[in-house]
Amino acid sequence: MSKTGNRISVAVIGYGYWGPNLARNFRRLGTDVRYICDLDESLRTLALKDCPNARFTRNLEDILHDNDVDAVCIATPVSTHFDIAMMCLKAGKHCLVEKPLADSSSHVQEMIALAVAQNLTLMTDHTYLYHGGIRKICELVKSGVLGPVMYYDSVRINLGLFQKDVNVIWDLATHDFSIMLYVLGRRPTSISASAVCHVEGRPESMAYVTCFFEDSLIVHFHVNWLAPVKIRKTIVGGLNKMIIFDELAADEQIKIYDRGVDTMALEYNTREIQISYRTGDMEAPQLDRTEPLGEAVRDFVESIVDPDRSPVSDGGISYDVIRMLEATEISHKQNGARVNIDWNGR
Amino acid sequence: MSKTGNRISVAVIGYGYWGPNLARNFRRLGTDVRYICDLDESLRTLALKDCPNARFTRNLEDILHDNDVDAVCIATPVSTHFDIAMMCLKAGKHCLVEKPLADSSSHVQEMIALAVAQNLTLMTDHTYLYHGGIRKICELVKSGVLGPVMYYDSVRINLGLFQKDVNVIWDLATHDFSIMLYVLGRRPTSISASAVCHVEGRPESMAYVTCFFEDSLIVHFHVNWLAPVKIRKTIVGGLNKMIIFDELAADEQIKIYDRGVDTMALEYNTREIQISYRTGDMEAPQLDRTEPLGEAVRDFVESIVDPDRSPVSDGGISYDVIRMLEATEISHKQNGARVNIDWNGR
Amino acid sequence: MSKTGNRISVAVIGYGYWGPNLARNFRRLGTDVRYICDLDESLRTLALKDCPNARFTRNLEDILHDNDVDAVCIATPVSTHFDIAMMCLKAGKHCLVEKPLADSSSHVQEMIALAVAQNLTLMTDHTYLYHGGIRKICELVKSGVLGPVMYYDSVRINLGLFQKDVNVIWDLATHDFSIMLYVLGRRPTSISASAVCHVEGRPESMAYVTCFFEDSLIVHFHVNWLAPVKIRKTIVGGLNKMIIFDELAADEQIKIYDRGVDTMALEYNTREIQISYRTGDMEAPQLDRTEPLGEAVRDFVESIVDPDRSPVSDGGISYDVIRMLEATEISHKQNGARVNIDWNGR
Amino acid sequence: MSKTGNRISVAVIGYGYWGPNLARNFRRLGTDVRYICDLDESLRTLALKDCPNARFTRNLEDILHDNDVDAVCIATPVSTHFDIAMMCLKAGKHCLVEKPLADSSSHVQEMIALAVAQNLTLMTDHTYLYHGGIRKICELVKSGVLGPVMYYDSVRINLGLFQKDVNVIWDLATHDFSIMLYVLGRRPTSISASAVCHVEGRPESMAYVTCFFEDSLIVHFHVNWLAPVKIRKTIVGGLNKMIIFDELAADEQIKIYDRGVDTMALEYNTREIQISYRTGDMEAPQLDRTEPLGEAVRDFVESIVDPDRSPVSDGGISYDVIRMLEATEISHKQNGARVNIDWNGR
Repeated sequence: MSKTGNRISVAVIGYGYWGPNLARNFRRLGTDVRYICDLDESLRTLALKDCPNARFTRNLEDILHDNDVDAVCIATPVSTHFDIAMMCLKAGKHCLVEKPLADSSSHVQEMIALAVAQNLTLMTDHTYLYHGGIRKICELVKSGVLGPVMYYDSVRINLGLFQKDVNVIWDLATHDFSIMLYVLGRRPTSISASAVCHVEGRPESMAYVTCFFEDSLIVHFHVNWLAPVKIRKTIVGGLNKMIIFDELAADEQIKIYDRGVDTMALEYNTREIQISYRTGDMEAPQLDRTEPLGEAVRDFVESIVDPDRSPVSDGGISYDVIRMLEATEISHKQNGARVNIDWNGR
Repeated sequence: MSKTGNRISVAVIGYGYWGPNLARNFRRLGTDVRYICDLDESLRTLALKDCPNARFTRNLEDILHDNDVDAVCIATPVSTHFDIAMMCLKAGKHCLVEKPLADSSSHVQEMIALAVAQNLTLMTDHTYLYHGGIRKICELVKSGVLGPVMYYDSVRINLGLFQKDVNVIWDLATHDFSIMLYVLGRRPTSISASAVCHVEGRPESMAYVTCFFEDSLIVHFHVNWLAPVKIRKTIVGGLNKMIIFDELAADEQIKIYDRGVDTMALEYNTREIQISYRTGDMEAPQLDRTEPLGEAVRDFVESIVDPDRSPVSDGGISYDVIRMLEATEISHKQNGARVNIDWNGR
Repeated sequence: MSKTGNRISVAVIGYGYWGPNLARNFRRLGTDVRYICDLDESLRTLALKDCPNARFTRNLEDILHDNDVDAVCIATPVSTHFDIAMMCLKAGKHCLVEKPLADSSSHVQEMIALAVAQNLTLMTDHTYLYHGGIRKICELVKSGVLGPVMYYDSVRINLGLFQKDVNVIWDLATHDFSIMLYVLGRRPTSISASAVCHVEGRPESMAYVTCFFEDSLIVHFHVNWLAPVKIRKTIVGGLNKMIIFDELAADEQIKIYDRGVDTMALEYNTREIQISYRTGDMEAPQLDRTEPLGEAVRDFVESIVDPDRSPVSDGGISYDVIRMLEATEISHKQNGARVNIDWNGR
Repeated sequence: MSKTGNRISVAVIGYGYWGPNLARNFRRLGTDVRYICDLDESLRTLALKDCPNARFTRNLEDILHDNDVDAVCIATPVSTHFDIAMMCLKAGKHCLVEKPLADSSSHVQEMIALAVAQNLTLMTDHTYLYHGGIRKICELVKSGVLGPVMYYDSVRINLGLFQKDVNVIWDLATHDFSIMLYVLGRRPTSISASAVCHVEGRPESMAYVTCFFEDSLIVHFHVNWLAPVKIRKTIVGGLNKMIIFDELAADEQIKIYDRGVDTMALEYNTREIQISYRTGDMEAPQLDRTEPLGEAVRDFVESIVDPDRSPVSDGGISYDVIRMLEATEISHKQNGARVNIDWNGR
């Protein structure tokens, strides 16, 4: 495509909770938001205040048939992602889809295959992969300063909206799966999960998920829609250094602790069975505070403009996330039994 | 026994980490600390500074044969609790034993049987059961203001000493099991646990434990010796109100949130699938800040003096804790499989 | 005026830091933002993205001569407020002016007189008076539950932008003066202040301000542009209860402490010279989290529509704030000497 | 003196709030606590539990006439410091005196003169000078990494005991004066203070103190006995880096912020009147967590043993603190007028 970024025209499909944020970031980037599509008239009216120059429709066909629309953002319920994305890809539109990409890994495979065949960009909005804090953690893990990572522990809880069509795992653990894959660069061999439903007839509202690997690395998430306070805290425990990421801290979101097991002391101190710890300084690096969604949207647009470029949050990572979500669901339904994931066989 | 509390004479067996705290609290209560017993001479020298009028010995026999010793506190490694306590009970001494009471439920059963036969007090130092915050939570749960408890979540992590003879489950989860039993007054039907060892040849240093019950109540602990910071935080999630207990907070250790699912709204709001939440005020009650160990020691002494009285942290709760620790160990060794606990059959 | 609120047409004059926020809140209210006026072309270009349907001008005359413009918001440097507002009032426009209303009390008097003569609304954007937390404090103080207020202490520091034309007193202490007047409903008899300039040739960047009253009430502000962290914390100390308002807290911005001097104990405990304190519970009420600027803008619009209504942040409070700022400046220039304010004589 | 440290014999005079802490730290150091002296019999009984081998007296003469007593610690009300210390110095006893050293600078001069004449150590227990955090700040300021210090701001508030014989300035600001002298190594040229009394007939319970210097350095304290929460927070603002010391933080008591005015940008950016800030990383160094009072007591004992050694908290700093307290009192009584201090003339 020979278009430059600020000549791209997008349609935002779904203007509920997240759609307005997508529209706002596209506008800030200078991208033309040509359509806002939603079935709910009141939401379209709301959209008019935000994007007075856009066109408003409840009809997806209007977008599919408009050749001036280069790309769509799909911010509709998860269960509709597959159908809408397939129609858009067939119509030649690049797709940015809300996380999770679809409701099954077989659907994701079809979507990826069609995007490749059509030579279109298919990206999931795993917004955290564009967060300055997550990028810093990724950089620190990759640099080796933490030493071997022993564990990754995340607590993501709040008093939030029950989703209509997905449970807390598909809603919140999706974030943790994508971050964990991105930061650690490793995929688990098996997953165990327990989820409970506390409001009859509703999806599960809290879950504990544990991921196991070939070595002693352990990854654990606590996700919860029914907590009294909002907590979003991740610990990455390395043998040499450890990180705490507190996304909700006003300042010092990332703290790097020079703490760990002092293996030197361990070697020479054989008579005493006690292990030495190193408790050194703590450092909180300055982070890039750019709005993550702005960076995600930019990555999408630049991947459209430059056909040789693939977005960070591409089909590969999106597919792996769905595989892990599926394994989590199976484990939860089998009373927490460990479910193996065969990454080769698929 | 006709003795009054301040005529009781105790011997402290084991003067490592916890022994000095026990001795200090007995002295503050006015109880005579007649012996300090430890194999390590340097610890006995340290004890001399604290209790200049006590007798110092490395020989348990000195204590067993001294008829003026009414009671012993056993603060030695867990693996020695059974042998030492059995000798002391046989010698007619009341026993206060560091948590956990022993290394197996069969040992605990023998200890309880002997204490009953000898008409002696056998108490475990589950210190948290005497903490003003835990007592407040217990009171709130029992009063019903929380509504049905949906979940109990505890994070108890720090960069601490590796124990010589027990892993992190027997060291830290013991606290959570005793608190959970005391506060909720319920025993789990099954337990699932994952623990990992990150320093070769050492006990497991972190674990995730999940307890399941007859209904949808779920209880979960994260215990960890290798965390960069110390966190001791418990959430008790009721349908009407929720509590957060932050033991390390300088002030406001207990926060009661008037938050929960608004079931009224739920009933009448059938068309809209969204659930209402109630986010009302938060209240932090003033707590009794007495040192918990002082209260524990007082309960022990008063239970000796008054033969009709049983301490809060008695054999019953101690036994249940051990049964849960055993189930946790089995689950961990079976890759996290759910292990049922038969509370009738034992 | 017979217009209803959503028929009002406003012009935003000055589109630097605060102008976009004003424009956004007017649009959300449904008010027509007819003009954006700024001398800087790049800011006008920015405005185009936010308000594609507005008219853009660098010329104030365009606004003054447009009879369809009912009101203006003046978000320009403080030194220009007087001239611009006087022109607008003469042209029959209602005025919402950024705080502080003008650079001298004599200017403010002229502005108020003209607004009265023209029968127009003149309001200062003292946004804090519309903050849910401040409104709650005001309500609590007025209800008497705090008992007599002993002191009011505010810390408002950050690493912020040096203002071009005003020092830290006129920039930040303005907030504290307006809040203090609103919450306590009392005016100081004298003020003492010390301010220092740490960057040569620049306005003072930090100041300490103390206000004295007829009784022992004391009010103190620390305002600072050169602090390493952002703090916005106010303590209102009553004899019976005390409040801490932490504006930057994610949750529990207002905490009400049942703490104070126990005067009953004081009376009867004459032999013992020690005073008793009451340290009871703490309560954090749920607050109205509506954006304060939205409420301010609504108050402005409703005061235009309803000629019998006066905005909370009206000329009276604005004038008192300026009088206090002037006394503060004089004290600072007289090495912190106490400067009396004659509220009758003016 | 040829005695070694662990052969020193001390008497603790006054066993109220602080005396037991002094006794405990002397015992831990291995120093013989030979006497506990207090007029109150119940306190002497309490002392018996802590120091069973000490002698107990209400009669100072017993101590003065006992040649085996090398040194005394005076932890009595401030108004009695001078008389007791003079008697002890005359009797040849080294003196460690609770802060502030005495109730007037002329008294302090007499005390210092007598100590010098008698060749005895006279030290004030300014405990903070032995705090790991304060020592770290001192080291950082002296090293120059902060750049020129622009300001020093301290908040030291709590709901505490009203002192019988001193107001909040002599009680709490004493700490801040000693720390400021030690850390900055500079003495103010003038002081301004406002203090208020909120309980009739009692000493002033809150005060604001400002210190001025030859340049634009400004130092400010807020001390308060009637605050709803305990805060002990100090900011040291350097042109290059800034420090926040939060004494009550469980961890990370010292935070060093790489923040300041970017003077380079300032120089070259003359057209734009805006100043650049540098907001870099934050670092929290590991601190020495030894109990400060233990270090103070050690400094006292070592200064006795080694006649060439002078304690950190010596007569010089103690005298300067009293001069500043006196200036503060005068300013407060003169309605906050700036009171000059002539450091040459005395």
